[in-house]
Amino acid sequence: MPKAKKIPAQLSRRAKQIQVLLMDVDGTFSRGVWLLSRPDGTAVELKGFDPHDGQGLTLARTAGLRTGVITGRESPALARRAREMDMEFVYQKQGHKLPVYEEILRKAGVSDAQVAYVGDDLPDIPLLKRAGLAVAVGDAVAEVKRAAHFITKARGGEGAIREVVELILKSQGKWDSIIEKARATTF
Amino acid sequence: MPKAKKIPAQLSRRAKQIQVLLMDVDGTFSRGVWLLSRPDGTAVELKGFDPHDGQGLTLARTAGLRTGVITGRESPALARRAREMDMEFVYQKQGHKLPVYEEILRKAGVSDAQVAYVGDDLPDIPLLKRAGLAVAVGDAVAEVKRAAHFITKARGGEGAIREVVELILKSQGKWDSIIEKARATTF
Amino acid sequence: MPKAKKIPAQLSRRAKQIQVLLMDVDGTFSRGVWLLSRPDGTAVELKGFDPHDGQGLTLARTAGLRTGVITGRESPALARRAREMDMEFVYQKQGHKLPVYEEILRKAGVSDAQVAYVGDDLPDIPLLKRAGLAVAVGDAVAEVKRAAHFITKARGGEGAIREVVELILKSQGKWDSIIEKARATTF
Amino acid sequence: MPKAKKIPAQLSRRAKQIQVLLMDVDGTFSRGVWLLSRPDGTAVELKGFDPHDGQGLTLARTAGLRTGVITGRESPALARRAREMDMEFVYQKQGHKLPVYEEILRKAGVSDAQVAYVGDDLPDIPLLKRAGLAVAVGDAVAEVKRAAHFITKARGGEGAIREVVELILKSQGKWDSIIEKARATTF
Repeated sequence: MPKAKKIPAQLSRRAKQIQVLLMDVDGTFSRGVWLLSRPDGTAVELKGFDPHDGQGLTLARTAGLRTGVITGRESPALARRAREMDMEFVYQKQGHKLPVYEEILRKAGVSDAQVAYVGDDLPDIPLLKRAGLAVAVGDAVAEVKRAAHFITKARGGEGAIREVVELILKSQGKWDSIIEKARATTF
Repeated sequence: MPKAKKIPAQLSRRAKQIQVLLMDVDGTFSRGVWLLSRPDGTAVELKGFDPHDGQGLTLARTAGLRTGVITGRESPALARRAREMDMEFVYQKQGHKLPVYEEILRKAGVSDAQVAYVGDDLPDIPLLKRAGLAVAVGDAVAEVKRAAHFITKARGGEGAIREVVELILKSQGKWDSIIEKARATTF
Repeated sequence: MPKAKKIPAQLSRRAKQIQVLLMDVDGTFSRGVWLLSRPDGTAVELKGFDPHDGQGLTLARTAGLRTGVITGRESPALARRAREMDMEFVYQKQGHKLPVYEEILRKAGVSDAQVAYVGDDLPDIPLLKRAGLAVAVGDAVAEVKRAAHFITKARGGEGAIREVVELILKSQGKWDSIIEKARATTF
Repeated sequence: MPKAKKIPAQLSRRAKQIQVLLMDVDGTFSRGVWLLSRPDGTAVELKGFDPHDGQGLTLARTAGLRTGVITGRESPALARRAREMDMEFVYQKQGHKLPVYEEILRKAGVSDAQVAYVGDDLPDIPLLKRAGLAVAVGDAVAEVKRAAHFITKARGGEGAIREVVELILKSQGKWDSIIEKARATTF
């Protein structure tokens, strides 16, 4: 990304209003589903995250965005990553995403227009249809891409979240001041 | 996959009859063979799966397809993933695949024409020659590709199974109603 | 590899004589160097292998080739994989590779011309200069590629070994009969 | 890299003076951020390194370069890899990188012009602006690339460090003699 791309006006208008950034986990914020066998016959979950996504979510928090995940799976690995990213809304083991989405909006005191949601597969579609800024990762399924206002260049788990954070903070005119602050900390 | 591709008529006729979807594991349903050293000098297996494959297999189950794996290796990691995907036929540590294939057909009460099999390497060929719908993953070896009715775009462990599920459910006219249901659940 | 490529005559002459197939591990037979932190402050090694390489090494054994690894690192993960592949020569934690290479030749009772060696980096060069068939993986460093008779299409840890096995067995006229046998077993 | 590329004169002049090679970890020296769930509800870190980077850092040490890492995270996995690479400066869990950078310079008794620093994201920029040789990995963010004297072809965690070592040792006229020595050892 050596040159800054101009953000389309309509997309920028959507991004300008975002106060809460929510996302799916597997295939969106993390890559693959990895299970490690244990000698006792059980298996535990390993999750892979992108360092640029991590830095992006820290920038988002510094800029005052509130962040969160909604996922059907559950793992200490995600819980730790969410804590490292200072996420406010962490909903694991959720068979149905829409009620959770609505609960988060109530708790945060925001409307659909103030929420961005990032996803990659069919269960994300109802939330994408509600969110003011609906984002599909670069390798999302066709149905999800059709439901999105913005499709990231990066694949899920490989920098897609960072792109969304940049889109939002640039649209809100906060990018330049935020990266000044970010240069002082490290991850 | 932003545009739906037309399924060739002959392939669609094969897919229409499928009731049981079977597959190899390493290089087909999972990616790589990963071994983790343990302090006691043994090693345990780590397996990586694709989130889109997982969603696809859930769609398949919702649509009434019966699913299963046949593999020469054995690991709690695969056992857990198969359970998460509600698989009916889970045969691990099988040195010979054809007798297992025949046992599954007997148990399921189906004929070759009603079975789809997905594989990537030489030991899969005898089953591919029997199955009504024989599928090679995108990075299968040449001999397997030659034995297949359909070659997925995705590499093994990176979405190949999802493509097969879509092929089957679209050919059976079940896709649109199934994704409606799928939007209500999440993984 | 949908079409068989003709093997150049000079390369085929080299491959025809091979009785022992030796290889480096990290970057050649396995991908990356992965270390898992443990709660007690130590770290254990995770190793990733390619399923097609595994099937290839099994084909090699079935065809009577003798196989082995020489590596500077040491891990139970590699020990297990070598055992699964029925490798005869497993030398881990070797700071100097050439003396090990010579020991293997003595034990196996073969000459340089009967040995194939596969590597990816500088310490492999002395062995590549000795071996009758010197192979560099697709992402080997420039110096190694220059020392090789054959460069695989696949990167190290992603199918390079399978290509070498096919090259040897096809040159020896054993490929067709071997894959017939291979179809009866599974991995 | 089958052909040697000519190093631009200005870059070579910078590289010629380097005595200390420092680097960020996640996204630069290692790939991804991987967390493994444990049965007790905690998670431990898994880190992936590139074998060519490892060989490069060993070459660097053999040539008398002093090496080190500065990172915001902390893991036994990195500690072990740094030990394997005989690194002199290992600073983990550092929220602010610049004070650490300055401490290393004092300890090593070198000036900015004698230090190379490799990074991939915003917190690396203050150090890149100080270091005599500022390097961005191939998939660094735009702001980091703009701050760098040299951008590697390889992505972070996939060989970028090896490129920097080659650049430095070739500029210093040490490459040919060093690889002679390297051929005698193995990793």
